[in-house]
Amino acid sequence: MSDLPSTVRICEEGPREGFQSEPPGIVAAAKIELIDALAETGLGDIACCSFVSPKYVPQMADAEEVAAGLRKRAGVRYTGLWLNASGFARARATPLDLTGLVVASASETFGIKNNNRNRAEMLAGQQSLMSDYRDAAIDAFAAYVFTAFGCNYEGEIAPTLVIGAIEDLLSVIPDPEVVYLCDTIGSASPPTIERVIAEVRSHWPELPLGLHLHDTRGVGMANALTGLQLGVARFDTSIGGLGGCPFAGNRPAAGNLCTEDLAYLCAELGIETGLDIPALIEAARLAEHIVGHPLPGKLKQAGLPARLL
Amino acid sequence: MSDLPSTVRICEEGPREGFQSEPPGIVAAAKIELIDALAETGLGDIACCSFVSPKYVPQMADAEEVAAGLRKRAGVRYTGLWLNASGFARARATPLDLTGLVVASASETFGIKNNNRNRAEMLAGQQSLMSDYRDAAIDAFAAYVFTAFGCNYEGEIAPTLVIGAIEDLLSVIPDPEVVYLCDTIGSASPPTIERVIAEVRSHWPELPLGLHLHDTRGVGMANALTGLQLGVARFDTSIGGLGGCPFAGNRPAAGNLCTEDLAYLCAELGIETGLDIPALIEAARLAEHIVGHPLPGKLKQAGLPARLL
Repeated sequence: MSDLPSTVRICEEGPREGFQSEPPGIVAAAKIELIDALAETGLGDIACCSFVSPKYVPQMADAEEVAAGLRKRAGVRYTGLWLNASGFARARATPLDLTGLVVASASETFGIKNNNRNRAEMLAGQQSLMSDYRDAAIDAFAAYVFTAFGCNYEGEIAPTLVIGAIEDLLSVIPDPEVVYLCDTIGSASPPTIERVIAEVRSHWPELPLGLHLHDTRGVGMANALTGLQLGVARFDTSIGGLGGCPFAGNRPAAGNLCTEDLAYLCAELGIETGLDIPALIEAARLAEHIVGHPLPGKLKQAGLPARLL
Repeated sequence: MSDLPSTVRICEEGPREGFQSEPPGIVAAAKIELIDALAETGLGDIACCSFVSPKYVPQMADAEEVAAGLRKRAGVRYTGLWLNASGFARARATPLDLTGLVVASASETFGIKNNNRNRAEMLAGQQSLMSDYRDAAIDAFAAYVFTAFGCNYEGEIAPTLVIGAIEDLLSVIPDPEVVYLCDTIGSASPPTIERVIAEVRSHWPELPLGLHLHDTRGVGMANALTGLQLGVARFDTSIGGLGGCPFAGNRPAAGNLCTEDLAYLCAELGIETGLDIPALIEAARLAEHIVGHPLPGKLKQAGLPARLL
């Protein structure tokens, strides 16, 4: 199967991006229970909450309470998300493990609509955050390229736009732990993933790439397989496929690729993830119980095949 | 993307395998409405019903009524399924387009549990059906290998068992239009698909292979991509992923791979299917309306990406 990596790092986004897509009302204790359960599955990175405006994202208004309530387990990075200096200042006051975030958008229109900033303003914002990161002695950095595979506003995204976004990011952090190519609107497909990754590697052959995928149109796992075949060794996923119930009509918020389903694919491919799949299935069922509606992940329904039990 | 076929034939199983997995009570008129809608999408093969025991499969008790009510469209094969001579006799009395079916099971235990026949009895049954097929002047034959990638009873299935099953099938019909490798229990994964197809091709390099996949564990589309990369050009699917609601607890009946999601993947890969994806999405929404609960297909929720509209 071509250039499959020998190990893959799967980073959990469910408590952050997932709960953010649910209606408000999930209590901090339930979020903490899920994060604690996830920390027992072998996951090394769990995105726990966002430090963003409670006016626009009321689901994350309890970010400090969640962060304070975690039973931190050694070997697990409990991360958070923020978009500006005041968000970072809030995160810094919690016991979370801070990873320096820098973001750029391949689609400038998306950046303007989502972050209210054009390309130059996005870059200036990241540069300004860097001084805060230095002040906090942060030494791990993750870079995100939004809309790397398509945009609801601009439609097709030329790979050169992705290159431009990565140039911006690398001008801020020359040595990121990972550069995530994000299928923000869930329009990626195997050939677009091949094309963008080939273009990025033609510029930076050794850049550590990750994929942040959504299963918006049913081809999320085919996209993940394509990434694996190209040697991509890092994925953002969410437990149970949390992040948008495909049946609630919230089309823009279709779920992230499902953690336990991707872990199963990796296991089948002989790729080491360090994850305990039965424990992930239990956590996915807990997530489903917490949100109170079915989540799209499949393995939690079917369980592992008989030959693996 | 390796050996992608230039065209793929997608055969619709929803009205047959899909409705068979739903609780009884879907009226013939609704089934006919869906089949008529599917016939407008470019599909060339629609499995409409099964001629099996109404005692065991009450959902198909109206098979004759469905077959009689169809508005047959030129260029579409309206097929049915049967497991024995009396079922075939019933099908023959309808206006359906008869394709000769021959089946074998890679797992003998599955054959005994599902069809109440060991390997020799299965083979004898197919030989006996052949004289009926000759009598009916049937000239198109489809062969199915059940449990080609795993079995709930026997666990892992050695590729040699698949070879044995195909030998049985080819002893009955030397020149099938297609030999379907069926992931009956939804335990296939990219490497098992590669392994089995490689083994089959080492015996019969030119045998026209199809895949009958279920998305039981979230890797169905990755399996389909693997098949496409190996040049497989025929797939059984069901509209909306009909064939088992993943949220109803009916674990053995997880849905077939979703027709419109696979059609979308093929379109993205530049593979011709002749299918009208927006019309498929409409049919999937109709199927969802008929069964009265969410179906697992994704594209019907999200629609096509902006760049394709």
